[in-house]
Amino acid sequence: MTAVYSLAQIKKAVAGLDALPAIEAGFVAYSKGEAVVPPVGELIFADPPGEAHIKYGYLRGDNVFVVKVATGFYENPKHGLPASSGLMLVFDSRTGVLLAVLLEEGFLTNVRTALAGAISAKYLARKPIECIAVLGTGVQARMQAEEVAAVVGCKRVAAWGRRTDALDAYRRDMQAKGFEVSTMQNVGAATRNAHLIITTTASETPILDLKHVAPGTHIVAMGSDTEAKNELSIDLIGAADVYVTDSLLQCSTRGELHHALRAGVRRIEDTVELGQVIADPTLGRANEAQITIADLTGVAVQDIAIAKAVCAVLAHRQAKRGQT
Amino acid sequence: MTAVYSLAQIKKAVAGLDALPAIEAGFVAYSKGEAVVPPVGELIFADPPGEAHIKYGYLRGDNVFVVKVATGFYENPKHGLPASSGLMLVFDSRTGVLLAVLLEEGFLTNVRTALAGAISAKYLARKPIECIAVLGTGVQARMQAEEVAAVVGCKRVAAWGRRTDALDAYRRDMQAKGFEVSTMQNVGAATRNAHLIITTTASETPILDLKHVAPGTHIVAMGSDTEAKNELSIDLIGAADVYVTDSLLQCSTRGELHHALRAGVRRIEDTVELGQVIADPTLGRANEAQITIADLTGVAVQDIAIAKAVCAVLAHRQAKRGQT
Repeated sequence: MTAVYSLAQIKKAVAGLDALPAIEAGFVAYSKGEAVVPPVGELIFADPPGEAHIKYGYLRGDNVFVVKVATGFYENPKHGLPASSGLMLVFDSRTGVLLAVLLEEGFLTNVRTALAGAISAKYLARKPIECIAVLGTGVQARMQAEEVAAVVGCKRVAAWGRRTDALDAYRRDMQAKGFEVSTMQNVGAATRNAHLIITTTASETPILDLKHVAPGTHIVAMGSDTEAKNELSIDLIGAADVYVTDSLLQCSTRGELHHALRAGVRRIEDTVELGQVIADPTLGRANEAQITIADLTGVAVQDIAIAKAVCAVLAHRQAKRGQT
Repeated sequence: MTAVYSLAQIKKAVAGLDALPAIEAGFVAYSKGEAVVPPVGELIFADPPGEAHIKYGYLRGDNVFVVKVATGFYENPKHGLPASSGLMLVFDSRTGVLLAVLLEEGFLTNVRTALAGAISAKYLARKPIECIAVLGTGVQARMQAEEVAAVVGCKRVAAWGRRTDALDAYRRDMQAKGFEVSTMQNVGAATRNAHLIITTTASETPILDLKHVAPGTHIVAMGSDTEAKNELSIDLIGAADVYVTDSLLQCSTRGELHHALRAGVRRIEDTVELGQVIADPTLGRANEAQITIADLTGVAVQDIAIAKAVCAVLAHRQAKRGQT
């Protein structure tokens, strides 16, 4: 019998869950070759512009596999709809039976994406961080800041965006969560005092350049997850002392790295995967002056980890209800 | 709001539905290049052996896209479980919102697969057919025979299988549906009087050879849908007068054709797609003596067509219930 869980149930389960260790373990397994993660399935829509990504796979020897569909339609907010949606499916890997449908509407993708940023900051950001610069004003601009703040212990955010109304809304929302927020429409102003920069836009032309980045900065570049998107300039990617991908394979065709590979300013050998850094933190930041970049495109192991963690909570609750 | 439909609801909807025209239209659209259907996503499991296929896509200009996951674990029946399962997802292609989850447990895949065989027989089999040979004793051996019989007007089946218990069960089930069934453990005996042969096994070595096939026969080869599976011998594929694929692209890497392409006994130019034959039946059988083969791997347009047709029925029923 397939369990179908609503967004409300899923949100409740996540509220009591620290999924960060599970996602770290997922990255480590992935970088050790213990995960089977085929290339991302993709549908691109032109009018209105949108995309659907299918990420799926399993950990070798595990008793489940996970399929995730995530959609992004960036004109949705004009019509009062969230830009992203989707669901996760958990199957028994020994029978193919569908165990659970998580109607998460993109929420779990947002959570695991924000946690990947936080994990990268945990291993790569210099400490302490006095200010976090956030480029972008969407859902991830909020969630990344929250998760990263929890890891680095800094609640001062300098936010950059193109629209003042979006910046105002961002400031209100984040202030309500206890953040000290300043807003800018100039990238250099936003990053001036920040040694941690999070890029969260769907931009297809670079918005962050080497000149905006002080020595010692860690950059979480999570906005780009297709071939066309691109947030970091080629010279910034080339100048990074430590360049971390969530998946070298994925970042070679989508995300930020592939732009730099093509331009010849960075070689594949001069990158390291996040799972390798987690397993051996000496592969990460070596000193206070290095620029580190985490190029995050989103890997199915994150979806597997969060879906499993949430299902465990939900099944446990259901079993408890069954007893009483 | 996402609608979640159970297998029971879906079966009821299919019972009152003639989905054949919708699936024909899907094939035509596909062969005209009007469908966006990326390569099949695939997960292969070793222990126990199993597979999951993800098929997805949309018709250009349509207001939905469909993602289907189908699983096959062939040792399941030992544990009292069906070998195949899965679900279909219908999304709004203008917002990415998940409209419907069809918990069809592989049923709709079975229906659309059987209908593809029937469509191929409708356009390619010579008339009349006195006997249908069915190789295999599983779900598709039953459903293909039923759908094909409805199209060619023949309820005499000669069934081949390896196990007598499976053959006995097949005979019982099909007799209960009004079929006249003989069972054989020798392929040649099963095909002797048949000008329509349906191969429905998961065999990885050819079971049907040219010597088993009389002139004028139409073969529905639907068992093979991975790279490894193979039901037809190379010489049979080479000898066919009309070789029809459901998707040339898919059959070049999975199904039957790619084995023959590699062996050099058939060229891509000497094949035609089912959608082309439907649009222009003169591309099919030219006379009573030709051997025709339909190489069916299952194309996402079939899933799109059946999912849309079923959702239309279910939504209509829901709306009617809402009124009363």
